[in-house]
Amino acid sequence: MIHEIASRSNPRVRALAAELDGLYVYEGDRLVRDLLARREPLRLLVAHHRHRQLALNAAAENIWLTDRPVLDRLSRLRDAPDLIAVIPPPKPGLNLERAEVVVVLDRVQDPANAGTAFRCAAAFGLDGMVLAGDTVRPWNPRFMRAAQTSLLDVPFQILPGLDELFSLKQASHFNVYLTAAAPPAERGLSPGEMRIPCLVVVGHEGRGIDHRWFFQHPVVHIPQSGLVDSLNAGVSACILMYELQRSGKIGVAER
Amino acid sequence: MIHEIASRSNPRVRALAAELDGLYVYEGDRLVRDLLARREPLRLLVAHHRHRQLALNAAAENIWLTDRPVLDRLSRLRDAPDLIAVIPPPKPGLNLERAEVVVVLDRVQDPANAGTAFRCAAAFGLDGMVLAGDTVRPWNPRFMRAAQTSLLDVPFQILPGLDELFSLKQASHFNVYLTAAAPPAERGLSPGEMRIPCLVVVGHEGRGIDHRWFFQHPVVHIPQSGLVDSLNAGVSACILMYELQRSGKIGVAER
Repeated sequence: MIHEIASRSNPRVRALAAELDGLYVYEGDRLVRDLLARREPLRLLVAHHRHRQLALNAAAENIWLTDRPVLDRLSRLRDAPDLIAVIPPPKPGLNLERAEVVVVLDRVQDPANAGTAFRCAAAFGLDGMVLAGDTVRPWNPRFMRAAQTSLLDVPFQILPGLDELFSLKQASHFNVYLTAAAPPAERGLSPGEMRIPCLVVVGHEGRGIDHRWFFQHPVVHIPQSGLVDSLNAGVSACILMYELQRSGKIGVAER
Repeated sequence: MIHEIASRSNPRVRALAAELDGLYVYEGDRLVRDLLARREPLRLLVAHHRHRQLALNAAAENIWLTDRPVLDRLSRLRDAPDLIAVIPPPKPGLNLERAEVVVVLDRVQDPANAGTAFRCAAAFGLDGMVLAGDTVRPWNPRFMRAAQTSLLDVPFQILPGLDELFSLKQASHFNVYLTAAAPPAERGLSPGEMRIPCLVVVGHEGRGIDHRWFFQHPVVHIPQSGLVDSLNAGVSACILMYELQRSGKIGVAER
């Protein structure tokens, strides 16, 4: 359905604005063009009139052609873009049973950290991600801006916490590696010592992973000079993914 | 000098607010407490009355004890913190002649990317960073928030561009490695092939490094699955630093 929408108080605009927080919304020219180039099916494409031709060719259930005030109302960026797309919720779809390398974000709060980790997971061809506990949700707009379209490429699963993850029968074949800025020295592994299949757990930015898990699983530690307290959670996750790929543990095993 | 400041229209407050953009300002409880714990000399500490004792013990040229409205006026965060500190400009102080591993940010625009790279440089004990061209400036508040106190630990130098850097006599001993999302295949090195002493150049987030340099220096490429266009500039820089440290090229050579 194609609609020309002239007013920011149009009932459709008001209805969308009200439910925006639970939807998967991509904002901005480059990101939306990436979606269109991938032929991702869109629920809705909101486009400035000047992109009329692009919009009419899009594979979208609904297309709104509109103007600056409506885009301003719908955008959560400081400067509203010309193109806003709403996609169907990506299917979680992580099959733990068949996975070999999965990164678990446990109560990660910063959307940029979580999004960065997703983007690296796509870059390095991980089997998937688990979002545990109150980890920021993937439909958070800052998460989506950092993750870009990797959200559509990386299978994921949302679980209430590490307890639930570790007690899953499908997760019983994994080596579990916890990450920590300063692990108990006698239990620290270097990144090169990780073995597949593995779950690599990255914790809360301030408090890390709940200490009771440290008695059950080894800690992998990225050696650091001690001048800073820790690498940020997103970067730590990416470095460990790089290490698994560099040492041939991702991408060589048969899937 | 200690001042009790009651009003947001106090002339000192107005004067500081006017020049804030060129100053090195740390905001927030944890960051400012980190500075105090390090005994960093502060130009100014602005503290809510409730932190009176902490403030009076600080090594600061000026201490302002104040209340919410003044903190609101000075803060560039959405929620003004209780503690704001202004430090003297950090001395650039990178000695290229004696350096072995230096990362160069060439026209990097995103303060979070540049700050993340600084934080990693501190974590991995790099000799320093070069900020080339219109790379975001280190006093940018979002840069400082991402870099945290690493800005005080990592020597750096600001240069007009790569031309100026490569023509410096003190830089003539370096191997130069350019990074690119998709390098010309025949010229791509893997990260493990980098040799010290080296300058590792990370470029503009969208446009990368000016192509004319690709005829003069090899490109190092982090292998990726091809599902995403590229790792972000901050993460790429951190992964290459990790690789240099992992393979013993940082931290083993005598300084």
